[in-house]
Amino acid sequence: MTHATAFSINQQQLVCVASFLAKEGKTQALIAALASLIPATRREAGCIRYELNLSRDEPRRVTFVEKFVDIAAFEQHCAKDAIVHYFHQVMPELVESYHVETYHQVIV
Amino acid sequence: MTHATAFSINQQQLVCVASFLAKEGKTQALIAALASLIPATRREAGCIRYELNLSRDEPRRVTFVEKFVDIAAFEQHCAKDAIVHYFHQVMPELVESYHVETYHQVIV
Amino acid sequence: MTHATAFSINQQQLVCVASFLAKEGKTQALIAALASLIPATRREAGCIRYELNLSRDEPRRVTFVEKFVDIAAFEQHCAKDAIVHYFHQVMPELVESYHVETYHQVIV
Amino acid sequence: MTHATAFSINQQQLVCVASFLAKEGKTQALIAALASLIPATRREAGCIRYELNLSRDEPRRVTFVEKFVDIAAFEQHCAKDAIVHYFHQVMPELVESYHVETYHQVIV
Repeated sequence: MTHATAFSINQQQLVCVASFLAKEGKTQALIAALASLIPATRREAGCIRYELNLSRDEPRRVTFVEKFVDIAAFEQHCAKDAIVHYFHQVMPELVESYHVETYHQVIV
Repeated sequence: MTHATAFSINQQQLVCVASFLAKEGKTQALIAALASLIPATRREAGCIRYELNLSRDEPRRVTFVEKFVDIAAFEQHCAKDAIVHYFHQVMPELVESYHVETYHQVIV
Repeated sequence: MTHATAFSINQQQLVCVASFLAKEGKTQALIAALASLIPATRREAGCIRYELNLSRDEPRRVTFVEKFVDIAAFEQHCAKDAIVHYFHQVMPELVESYHVETYHQVIV
Repeated sequence: MTHATAFSINQQQLVCVASFLAKEGKTQALIAALASLIPATRREAGCIRYELNLSRDEPRRVTFVEKFVDIAAFEQHCAKDAIVHYFHQVMPELVESYHVETYHQVIV
């Protein structure tokens, strides 16, 4: 590269990567629990992307790649009954550890 | 939920989440280095998505969300001169730690 | 603009825009018929995008925006029983006119 | 299909399909003109997708597939100097006919 690629940050839209490591023997139950969140989330007006992925490298890891129109839409999503229920009731039974991180996209 | 959400795994397409933690003071240089990889990668015939994101939670973290048509396309991408150069020459100067994980999407 | 934007054509991936104008009074039935094709299509290994849209300008128009990993994947999709059934059995009852056009993406 | 697929309409996000038929001999110039609109549009905070495509069926047709976070974001896009310039100054020289249609996505 002989010149810099111009970039900017989209400060409005919100990207989230939410990764969950299933307890031993709980991966299928975890995928099922997370998959059950998808249809309603995709109906949220502010949802751009809500894709679930199963790791090829760590067979117990399941990771959402998410994008919302703005932070308010993401916070509304996080406050939905099904999401709160997952984090408070389901996750403690199925998940050994997890990490949720939010981002703004770098636009090129 | 009174019934299970049916799901399947797309075993062909390849998702990658590649996350890099910049050394102190190197975040802007890291974003620039990673952004410079985007135009050529998006021209690869097998590239579906190659989006760079800057963390809101850890200001030194920069993460690619990637999708390719299949594993071969991903491996061809990883073997490109610019990618090899980044991992061997650029990354050691700019990055404190990193994690690359590949996935298959769970389809609902 | 004082300089040209470089572009190339992705000759591998296949984009399709398939637009259907419902007969009078048949729009809801058409949406339902087309929506019923979505879950199975999204499970096809070569499906990247299969999104249905309802026009704001012509209330009887319903349009798929589609992307597949390559032409073979698109042709396999088109040969699926449910798709053939739609074009041969369902569409004649519900659709006044339609237009299907395939594309290659211009990459910038 | 033994049961209906539930669907809803995302009334917030805005999809646009904008299709242009180049005058004879003007296809490359049209692609270049439209491609030059892409980088700035992708930097708009409300832009979700702005993808240009070249028809395989009608070699003079070039079509944008677009998605914005809401109608206001789409209208702001349409009012940008570069877009107005394209429609008023560039298009009359390069385009034989065109069709722009806006949609709301049907969510399944």
